[in-house]
Amino acid sequence: MVHQNAKKAHEFAEETVGSLMDFDFICVPETYTVSETFKYLRKNVHGKANIHYSYVIDPLGVLVGVLSLRELLGADENAILKDIMAPTTLKLSYDLDQEKAAKIFQDSDLVTLPVIDTNGRMIGVLHVDEMMDVLQQEATEDIHKMASISVDEDEEVKGLLESSMGWLYKKRIGWLVILVFVNLLSGAGIASYEELLNQHIYVVFFLPLLIASGGNTGSQSTTLVIRAMAVGDVTMRDWGKVFAKEALVSFALGITMAAAIAVIGYYRGSDYGAGTETAIIIALSMVIVVMFGGLLGAIIPFVFRLFKLDPATASTPLITSICDIAGVFIYLGIASLFLQL
Amino acid sequence: MVHQNAKKAHEFAEETVGSLMDFDFICVPETYTVSETFKYLRKNVHGKANIHYSYVIDPLGVLVGVLSLRELLGADENAILKDIMAPTTLKLSYDLDQEKAAKIFQDSDLVTLPVIDTNGRMIGVLHVDEMMDVLQQEATEDIHKMASISVDEDEEVKGLLESSMGWLYKKRIGWLVILVFVNLLSGAGIASYEELLNQHIYVVFFLPLLIASGGNTGSQSTTLVIRAMAVGDVTMRDWGKVFAKEALVSFALGITMAAAIAVIGYYRGSDYGAGTETAIIIALSMVIVVMFGGLLGAIIPFVFRLFKLDPATASTPLITSICDIAGVFIYLGIASLFLQL
Repeated sequence: MVHQNAKKAHEFAEETVGSLMDFDFICVPETYTVSETFKYLRKNVHGKANIHYSYVIDPLGVLVGVLSLRELLGADENAILKDIMAPTTLKLSYDLDQEKAAKIFQDSDLVTLPVIDTNGRMIGVLHVDEMMDVLQQEATEDIHKMASISVDEDEEVKGLLESSMGWLYKKRIGWLVILVFVNLLSGAGIASYEELLNQHIYVVFFLPLLIASGGNTGSQSTTLVIRAMAVGDVTMRDWGKVFAKEALVSFALGITMAAAIAVIGYYRGSDYGAGTETAIIIALSMVIVVMFGGLLGAIIPFVFRLFKLDPATASTPLITSICDIAGVFIYLGIASLFLQL
Repeated sequence: MVHQNAKKAHEFAEETVGSLMDFDFICVPETYTVSETFKYLRKNVHGKANIHYSYVIDPLGVLVGVLSLRELLGADENAILKDIMAPTTLKLSYDLDQEKAAKIFQDSDLVTLPVIDTNGRMIGVLHVDEMMDVLQQEATEDIHKMASISVDEDEEVKGLLESSMGWLYKKRIGWLVILVFVNLLSGAGIASYEELLNQHIYVVFFLPLLIASGGNTGSQSTTLVIRAMAVGDVTMRDWGKVFAKEALVSFALGITMAAAIAVIGYYRGSDYGAGTETAIIIALSMVIVVMFGGLLGAIIPFVFRLFKLDPATASTPLITSICDIAGVFIYLGIASLFLQL
C-alpha cells in the first residue's frame, strides 16, 4: 500500500504536502522493544538523510506513535515502543495546502512531520526546511499581488532575471489596463465640476495632494490588514475591532495632515481673496479623504475574504485608484459648497 | 569557557544568531569511539529536546566535526569519531545577522546548525524552526516599509490587534506628512500651467489617469526589484540587466495602455474641436509617463542600496508621488506644446 502510493508521488497536486514530501523515513511495529528498534535502525538507516524520528505503526499499518532517536537513546532497552511512544497528534494529510502545513510547523517545534493517506497509513515525511521555501514563496506572491501584479497560484514564482519579458508583460498589463479605466472615473469626476474649476482654477492646485493622501493612508491600512491576515494575526471576526481602531487612527492622521496643509491653503487662497475658505475646504477635505482611505483600506481585505477572494488582491494601486475617485468628489464637492455660496 | 558564554545569552544583540540560539546540545571529544559516544548520549540526552546531531570537539574545545544520530546508528561500534565524522563546514558566528542565518539554512538542508564564539568553540545551536519566524518577520517588515509604514529594525513586529493606536499613529504619520509636501509639488506643477488649463480645461480630465498610470507601473517594478533583492535573486551588479529589461517591458506596457486610452481621448477631445491632438497628446504622454514610472521604480532600490539604505524604503507611495509630479510636467508640457502652437 505504502509502495503503491509512493509511486504516484509525481501525481500529487502542486502546492500540497504530497508534492513536497520525502520518502526516506523509518517505520517500526508498535510491538518492538527499544533494542529491536535499534537493530532495525542500524540495518535500515544507511543512505537516508534527515532521519530524526522513528515512527510507530499498528498491525494495520496505521501510524500511531513517534519517538525521536534522542528519546530512543534515553529509553530502557527492553521497553516496548507502544508503552513509551508519544501518540502522533500532529500528522499531515497528503492533500493539505502547503501554506497550512507551514503554519502547523511554525506552531510546533518539530523538524519533521509524518504524512498520511486517507486510511491513516504513513506515506512520507515533510521536513521543515521545505517550509522555509514555502513561506518565502507565499510572501513573494502576496507582495506581488499587493502591487497589482497577477499571480498564478499553480505556477512557481520565477526569479526576476530568469523570467521572460513576455511573461512579465502578461503579469503586469491586466491590472494596469483595468486601473486606467478605473482612473477614467476620476477624470469624469473632475469634468463634472468644470464650472467650479473655470471660476476657481486654483482649487486644482490642492487636488493631487488631497487625493494622494487618501490613497497613501489606504495603502498603509490595507497592507497592515492583509499582512496580519496572512500571518494569522487577524481573522474574519476581528473586522469590527480593526475598523474601529482604524477610524480613530485615521482620524488622528487626518487631523495632523490637515493642520500641516491648512496654513499653505490659507496663503495660497489669499491670493485669490479666499484664504479662510480655502483653509477650511482643504482641512475638512483632508480629514474626510484620509478617513475614507484608511477605512476603505482596512475593510476591503475583509470583503474580499468574505467573497472567498484572496485579500492580497486588494492591491495598493486598486485602493489608491478608488481613493482618487472618492477624493475628487469629496474635495470638489466641499469646495463647491463653500465657494459657490 | 562554554559555561561563561552561555551565561551571557541575554546580552546577545537583537536579531542576531546569539539571541535565538538554544543551549541544549551534545558535544563529544574526537577521540571517542561510536560505542563510547552512545554511552555518553544515553546518559546526557534526558530532558533535552531537538537533539539530532552529536558535535565533535578537539582537545582545545574547538568544534571540528559533526555526526547525525542517524549516522552514528549506522556506524561501526569501534570506529573513532575523528575518522568517521563530517567536518563542520557550516557553523554560525554568534553575532551573525538572523536574516543571513536564514539564508544559510535555506541553502543547506540541515535542521540544526552549531553556533561558535570568536575562538571557534561551540556555544549553542540554532534550529531551523526559529528561522521560519525570522523569514516571516523580515517579510512583514519589508511589506510594511513598502507601504510607507516606518519599521524600527531593533523592535519586534507587533500584531495589528495588540498594537496600540498611539504606536500605529507614530508608525504611519511620518511618511504621510512627508508625502503631503512631496505632493504639493504636483499642485505647484499644475499651477504653473494655469493658463493652459484656463484655455483648455478638458485637459484636466485625463490628468488623474495619466499620473496614476505612471505610479502604478512604478509600484510594480519597484516591488519586483525590492522583493528580488530581498530573496537574493538580484544583486547590485544586475542593475544594468534589470534596467534594460524594464525599459522594454514598460515600453510595451505603455504602448498598450496608450492604445486603450487614445480612442477615448479622441472622442473627448472632439467635443472641443481637438480630437486628433488630444489622442496624440494622451498616447504620447502615456508611453513616456509609464516608461518613466517603470524605470524609476526599477532603479530607485539600487540607488537606495548604493547609499546603504534599505531598498524597501523605496515604498510604493513614494514612487507614486514622484511619478505624480513627473506625470504633471510630462503631460501638461506635451499638451501645451501641441495646443498652444
